[in-house]
Amino acid sequence: MREGGHRSLLRLGANESAFGPSPTAVAAMAAELPRLSWYGDPESYDLRAALAPRHGCASENICVGAGIDDLMGLAVRAFLAAGRTALATLGTYPTFSYHVVGYSGNLQTVPYCNDGSVDVDGLVAAARKIRPAIVYLANPDNPSGTFLAAEAVQQLFEALPKESLLFLDEAYADFVEESALLPQLIDERLIRVRTFSKAYGMAGARIGYSVSTARNVETFQKIRLQYGVNRNAQIGALASLADMPFAQYIVRETAAGREEYYSLAGSLRCPFLRSRTNFVCIDFNTRERAAAVLNRLLQLGVFVRKPGAPPLDRFVRISVGTAPERTEFGVRLRRALEDVDR
Amino acid sequence: MREGGHRSLLRLGANESAFGPSPTAVAAMAAELPRLSWYGDPESYDLRAALAPRHGCASENICVGAGIDDLMGLAVRAFLAAGRTALATLGTYPTFSYHVVGYSGNLQTVPYCNDGSVDVDGLVAAARKIRPAIVYLANPDNPSGTFLAAEAVQQLFEALPKESLLFLDEAYADFVEESALLPQLIDERLIRVRTFSKAYGMAGARIGYSVSTARNVETFQKIRLQYGVNRNAQIGALASLADMPFAQYIVRETAAGREEYYSLAGSLRCPFLRSRTNFVCIDFNTRERAAAVLNRLLQLGVFVRKPGAPPLDRFVRISVGTAPERTEFGVRLRRALEDVDR
Repeated sequence: MREGGHRSLLRLGANESAFGPSPTAVAAMAAELPRLSWYGDPESYDLRAALAPRHGCASENICVGAGIDDLMGLAVRAFLAAGRTALATLGTYPTFSYHVVGYSGNLQTVPYCNDGSVDVDGLVAAARKIRPAIVYLANPDNPSGTFLAAEAVQQLFEALPKESLLFLDEAYADFVEESALLPQLIDERLIRVRTFSKAYGMAGARIGYSVSTARNVETFQKIRLQYGVNRNAQIGALASLADMPFAQYIVRETAAGREEYYSLAGSLRCPFLRSRTNFVCIDFNTRERAAAVLNRLLQLGVFVRKPGAPPLDRFVRISVGTAPERTEFGVRLRRALEDVDR
Repeated sequence: MREGGHRSLLRLGANESAFGPSPTAVAAMAAELPRLSWYGDPESYDLRAALAPRHGCASENICVGAGIDDLMGLAVRAFLAAGRTALATLGTYPTFSYHVVGYSGNLQTVPYCNDGSVDVDGLVAAARKIRPAIVYLANPDNPSGTFLAAEAVQQLFEALPKESLLFLDEAYADFVEESALLPQLIDERLIRVRTFSKAYGMAGARIGYSVSTARNVETFQKIRLQYGVNRNAQIGALASLADMPFAQYIVRETAAGREEYYSLAGSLRCPFLRSRTNFVCIDFNTRERAAAVLNRLLQLGVFVRKPGAPPLDRFVRISVGTAPERTEFGVRLRRALEDVDR
């Protein structure tokens, strides 16, 4: 906004929830603001106790962190010695590679399939060859929005070399029905992470958690910031869990928004990727045309993003907005495309 | 509280502000809670712009982090290669040594002087001998509460080997008059850190900042969590800076609280350390007696802490509470001491 000199922006670029946090979470956080002078519970005791039964595990299997980015940093720091190799899909959520590079690791990548799906066979083949310390998988994936069924994830996990840990980033899993997700699996070689940033609408609060063995949690415990999670974020997360109707409403509304984007893309004769997240990738045929659309949209006050690496670099990624935002986005995208193709 | 089975606790152990955040900060944060679904500004642009003139520097000299613990971790990670040595006072704020150990560094220490002051000459002598990559100084110090005048800090800084970076933790500097503090000094070998946790009463928000060269800020920029600072914490910090009368009230009230603790200690014939912070260390002669007082206080529902390392292990550290809390603490301390000495 500052750089473009825009007064207001159609903010559809960061996969934030357009629907805000739960009103009961807002009320719970507002009531506790006068006690923000107190540190948050370093153990996140209440939140872990509320999360454990949802995941069919014990509190000891859960570590709360300041968002998935924080937990991802802990995993890379703990499990990727300097010079060791990590493996990920080329162009997937970039903070993983940021941490790998930042901790002097070596990142190897496998491209997406041309249809935007994660190349499971390619990841397995690469892992067997390079024997990475960590394999990163976002499922549903960001930025593609594509999703691997539970069986595929299970097969990937089982096919990995025994020295490889699977870091399973489930930031968008709340948008997928429980039955389609990998069942609970507590294993030394598996760290699953979830967030309150997406379906719970608390991106600005910085709170997420990992599920793994008690031993892996203890490893995080040795290096994490003991008082690192905002007190109010813990309170809001706990209140959010108690307001499932709101989260379910967000999931439904997000699904409706995806359908609208699909229709919009269809009406513009653009292919698109079916998504299980709160964003949709629309295909503009070439990387150049996609970049031109992105730039024109920015000039029109629309903030969206474009995957940088092939084959997804021909797409533009749009977060699901509110109904009026989606309508306005349709108007501006139509105009941007006309300008670009003129 | 959980472990002791206490219903309520006189919470005077974590140097939190007993006076809460500024009411205008609370109002500003409450108003923005519905937008907590948005990530905070990754650049903390507005907050840095508000801080820069207070420190006589540019925004480029400031890095905002999720509290001093976060910034301290960045400094150790960036400037202390594995196996290299850091230097600190034995028993000072423990998160520094936590990070040094966590990043495979080697911590060397110099004890406090017997009067609880930091041994500047000892630190200089040790630094010249071991040539540490980082020297840590908390000023005012925690847990002693003692303070080094600007000249002493300046002399320490100038006497350090050229390869040593001084990490100057000024968490409690807001309780000291500006004129007594080290003047602004932008130097590649100096990183000063401040927090909103103490005088601004926002410990639970996790927000602090460092002041150094633009080059050092860029180094942090390469490894920090880009979206790591809670959005509401940024809003509250900005609003707090605009409410200096509140911060000044906290500083005055804290000074009054220290005086009360001094009187209390005197009436119990206990020596104490004059403090420039929001806590006071009371001397119970021996480590055993101090431990007994601490344990008895815990049984009486008072949460305070005791420095672990000599020579400060004969002290108990009490955070300044509200006026009623201080009165109640006096009653319970008197009782605890009677029980211990019976």
